[in-house]
Amino acid sequence: MFKLDPILEKDTIFLGDLSLSRVLLMNNSLFPWLILVPRKENLSEIIDLSPRDSEVLLSEIRYLSLSFKKLFNPTKLNVAALGNQVKQLHVHVIARFENDQAWPNPVWGYDKVLYTDEQLDKIVTRLKATVFEL
Amino acid sequence: MFKLDPILEKDTIFLGDLSLSRVLLMNNSLFPWLILVPRKENLSEIIDLSPRDSEVLLSEIRYLSLSFKKLFNPTKLNVAALGNQVKQLHVHVIARFENDQAWPNPVWGYDKVLYTDEQLDKIVTRLKATVFEL
Repeated sequence: MFKLDPILEKDTIFLGDLSLSRVLLMNNSLFPWLILVPRKENLSEIIDLSPRDSEVLLSEIRYLSLSFKKLFNPTKLNVAALGNQVKQLHVHVIARFENDQAWPNPVWGYDKVLYTDEQLDKIVTRLKATVFEL
Repeated sequence: MFKLDPILEKDTIFLGDLSLSRVLLMNNSLFPWLILVPRKENLSEIIDLSPRDSEVLLSEIRYLSLSFKKLFNPTKLNVAALGNQVKQLHVHVIARFENDQAWPNPVWGYDKVLYTDEQLDKIVTRLKATVFEL
């Protein structure tokens, strides 16, 4: 049984499920930031996935990257599977801009500014419309 | 014509070429740290690769991850395509340990301690033997 890590659960907003991965929005208004979590048990590394599942994950990373490019036209996408603090396999897809607060450094360790209810409603609606066509 | 970014060239040691990617060792003895650079022109994002090439890149990431796991038995692998500072598409594969200097934070922005000639000779030989079977 897949169960989302409690830290990921706390820090994110559920957007929907793709074929393999749960798609979450990081609750940090400083960066458009998605997290993909493959919905299988006992995964920590990309190599814990079967070769076939890792290709599905890749296609989902590409799909979300294209969605982010279309929505936000970022300077750069950052894609990363780190997991030093949260062991459950998860992949960050982050839209970066030359004027964002962490640029050109990675976003981890920077401040977090939660979305207001109004901001959250707006971005969740936009993301769901683009990613899940809802 | 593929040409390696001069910053990547300066900061790394050439290990060899896989089917798609050049494999480089980051010259930083604090972390076992490989960089894969797909040998094609004008790539900055994973989505700039054809779907087929991105699958080859994924298989090379998996291959290097397995090699690192076998060689170093790390606590965690970190896999990331960031590219905020070096635009040329490159993927980091880093072996992380609970007692390394940056743990549990990401490695970017931490100190760099160059390998000594002796250390370099040893790790390059080990990596070439494992990754390229030389």
